[in-house]
Amino acid sequence: MSHPFFTYNGPLSIESISKLLNIKIDITSNFEITDIKDLSNADQNSITFLHSNKYKDEAKLTKASYCLTTHLLKDSLPKTCRPIIVENVLKATSVITAKIYPNSVEDKFEKKIKNIEQVTFKNDVEYGKNVLVGENVDFGSNCLIGHNTIIEKNVKIGNNCKIGSNTIIRNSIIKDNVSILDNCVIGKKGFGFFPNKSQNLRYPHIGIVIINDNCEIGCGATIDRGSMSNTEIGKNTFLDNQVHIAHNVKIGENTIIAGQVGIAGSSVIGSNVRIGGQAGISGHLKIGDNVDIAGGSGVIKDIPNNMKVMGYPAKNIREFLRENK
Amino acid sequence: MSHPFFTYNGPLSIESISKLLNIKIDITSNFEITDIKDLSNADQNSITFLHSNKYKDEAKLTKASYCLTTHLLKDSLPKTCRPIIVENVLKATSVITAKIYPNSVEDKFEKKIKNIEQVTFKNDVEYGKNVLVGENVDFGSNCLIGHNTIIEKNVKIGNNCKIGSNTIIRNSIIKDNVSILDNCVIGKKGFGFFPNKSQNLRYPHIGIVIINDNCEIGCGATIDRGSMSNTEIGKNTFLDNQVHIAHNVKIGENTIIAGQVGIAGSSVIGSNVRIGGQAGISGHLKIGDNVDIAGGSGVIKDIPNNMKVMGYPAKNIREFLRENK
Amino acid sequence: MSHPFFTYNGPLSIESISKLLNIKIDITSNFEITDIKDLSNADQNSITFLHSNKYKDEAKLTKASYCLTTHLLKDSLPKTCRPIIVENVLKATSVITAKIYPNSVEDKFEKKIKNIEQVTFKNDVEYGKNVLVGENVDFGSNCLIGHNTIIEKNVKIGNNCKIGSNTIIRNSIIKDNVSILDNCVIGKKGFGFFPNKSQNLRYPHIGIVIINDNCEIGCGATIDRGSMSNTEIGKNTFLDNQVHIAHNVKIGENTIIAGQVGIAGSSVIGSNVRIGGQAGISGHLKIGDNVDIAGGSGVIKDIPNNMKVMGYPAKNIREFLRENK
Repeated sequence: MSHPFFTYNGPLSIESISKLLNIKIDITSNFEITDIKDLSNADQNSITFLHSNKYKDEAKLTKASYCLTTHLLKDSLPKTCRPIIVENVLKATSVITAKIYPNSVEDKFEKKIKNIEQVTFKNDVEYGKNVLVGENVDFGSNCLIGHNTIIEKNVKIGNNCKIGSNTIIRNSIIKDNVSILDNCVIGKKGFGFFPNKSQNLRYPHIGIVIINDNCEIGCGATIDRGSMSNTEIGKNTFLDNQVHIAHNVKIGENTIIAGQVGIAGSSVIGSNVRIGGQAGISGHLKIGDNVDIAGGSGVIKDIPNNMKVMGYPAKNIREFLRENK
Repeated sequence: MSHPFFTYNGPLSIESISKLLNIKIDITSNFEITDIKDLSNADQNSITFLHSNKYKDEAKLTKASYCLTTHLLKDSLPKTCRPIIVENVLKATSVITAKIYPNSVEDKFEKKIKNIEQVTFKNDVEYGKNVLVGENVDFGSNCLIGHNTIIEKNVKIGNNCKIGSNTIIRNSIIKDNVSILDNCVIGKKGFGFFPNKSQNLRYPHIGIVIINDNCEIGCGATIDRGSMSNTEIGKNTFLDNQVHIAHNVKIGENTIIAGQVGIAGSSVIGSNVRIGGQAGISGHLKIGDNVDIAGGSGVIKDIPNNMKVMGYPAKNIREFLRENK
Repeated sequence: MSHPFFTYNGPLSIESISKLLNIKIDITSNFEITDIKDLSNADQNSITFLHSNKYKDEAKLTKASYCLTTHLLKDSLPKTCRPIIVENVLKATSVITAKIYPNSVEDKFEKKIKNIEQVTFKNDVEYGKNVLVGENVDFGSNCLIGHNTIIEKNVKIGNNCKIGSNTIIRNSIIKDNVSILDNCVIGKKGFGFFPNKSQNLRYPHIGIVIINDNCEIGCGATIDRGSMSNTEIGKNTFLDNQVHIAHNVKIGENTIIAGQVGIAGSSVIGSNVRIGGQAGISGHLKIGDNVDIAGGSGVIKDIPNNMKVMGYPAKNIREFLRENK
């Protein structure tokens, strides 16, 4: 119901949703929506959204009471979930989300920030020069923070973490024994907007970044927070320098990602995956467990477990090498 | 006649040009050159340069009174423009430019910089901690500047702009409603020099960076200023994280450039273009309007309007996908 | 015998090595190891390591008195070098190195750092705001250091060097007339570790970064220090923005490397090489002198002198262009 980080401006009545979207909704009760969530995370106080056939199966099981969707898709919803028919599902979702979490659209710099020397932490944190810490920041014990680093706001850091210098973190949960090296930007809004002549329309990013135990994040990495779900990196996964992880990406455990790799929005990467330097993975893909992706590859479709791929478009590595002797 | 940003050390007499280049020039008057400009921007007080057949048509129309060029190319010039024959046109251009604008060769850090709290702005600017501002910097109203950001010198920023943290801007004009995120470097000299055993010879960069209304520039972007012309990004164009835009590049309006894309020097990109993640565009190319370039592509030749391309070298996307099933 | 930068915790008796590795070694004397080095750099007071057939020839000539190796490889060693048989040569090497140089495994931020204004340099150094300088740092004459830059520790900088703003340097030797631009990270530990479920095991990095005379390093570059040998960039080599150079890489003289190039660990690049933007070079390769690598190429095997290559995998450029009209 309430977000760990963003200011909550709910609940919303169905009537106010009707006004916001400028559509007619058959209002049968003075029901109030407390949150907006994706199909599987929604509960009966939530509104959800269904914009593609791809999510039909999840739609059938949603617990949401209302769903933003289209005429063509509405029949996938269970009887307990009333469809609200809109022209553009993602734009309507964006409008409702921005209303409930108004601070999730633009990332303004944190004004209530202080030099860490002016802040009291109950646990032992060692820190360098000019470290800045904003509101809603919490550290476990035995952490190190390098020089000029900005823990901007809405950050929870576990025990035994090492944060480098010149790094910026916001809207993130960092678990235990995590190393984040220098010059990273973790937790900014993703590259998500509705293209629009004269001025693109940015949509909200209410997802956060979660980095699990024992991970290492190399220098110059950018890890964007999610739009409607979180960006998450599994335990003991290591990223080399200059890696870019876009919004909503999920990465499994024990995965190794070499330098300058880019993973586009909403892709899901398995565990024990190895990705060579400069490889790129398109958005909305599913890469299985134990997959090897050769350096420089361009992956444009799903890859099942245990496969080794190479090339652009990436294919079975033996086939690629046979064709490219 | 005078540059908006670089200290002007002109005018130059033809005699002094003769000495600088160590060549004989038939000096018919005590004419003085006030500026050096490319063929189409030069006026009758300027010297210009012509180093390739590719620019013949522009040469015919130049208003310059003098032109650095070669025996082979000199006949393309109009009668009003006297050729000055040199062995290496670009080196001679570099020598004259460095003489007129001596500070455009190397980017020394700005010594006359101050913490923004010591500077008075007539308009409302909100700023974070440790923001540094140098000479010849101007802000419009309602701007935000994040922590540790350096607006180094020679920067004009419009209204309603948001500059992130740890970002460095110099020699740039930023129009209205522009967002520049964290860790960017905007306006440094480009990667331009004459290779030379034992010590390469850097040439001047008197171009600036212009970012037009409503643009967004992602984290970790580098946008280099131009050598003899400007680097310019059109209205409402959005760049994702870790993008590199080299010197003299021009990008149109409403273009969308995904993460880790690189555009090499002097290429011109149209409007409404979409460039997928990690795509690379070689130098001196012309990419038309409404072009789609798939992520990971390597573009090595011009692309006409409305085309969709993919692959390395990039070709028609249907052809590429048919050949790479 | 002693490392220029890392705290020395030796010598080690053969008995203590036996305990550290939990193996039996036939101890014939109370010999003490003063250092651990690769096969060719080891002297008679050193222990070395041999983990692959590839290094047989170097093994025959080693001057080391002891060598960590396997049953299969031990016969390549000269009689003056006693084999110490272990299960995993690289892990054993890592354990011994970490014992002798305990600070080379993790890069903790330097606590004994000061604002440069509190430090006395005998030579003239001009510096910007908020410059931090740690222990064991030395500058030649006539250097410039930009704002917010961190010369963290163990750094020797020559004469006439220009260091940009927001840059971090540690464990590095920078020779004369070198320019390092903004937002770089030079000298951090490389991306080297033994993958291990639940928690990867990082190995030490006792190599340093050496950047020779007249080099230029572009914005946002990351140059990692070596594990058992140095990362080195030859004279007058120029790197553009966002380049990544991994641990142990050696680059020759007068080489030109365009934007966003990545060179993976332990590769050796010749002199007068030109590498186009976004090209990637796999690890452990040898690229000859006067080689041209087209932008966007992916190099996965050695390239002899004077060759021009393009494509992924990179091949003769004429062949590539003929096949890809």
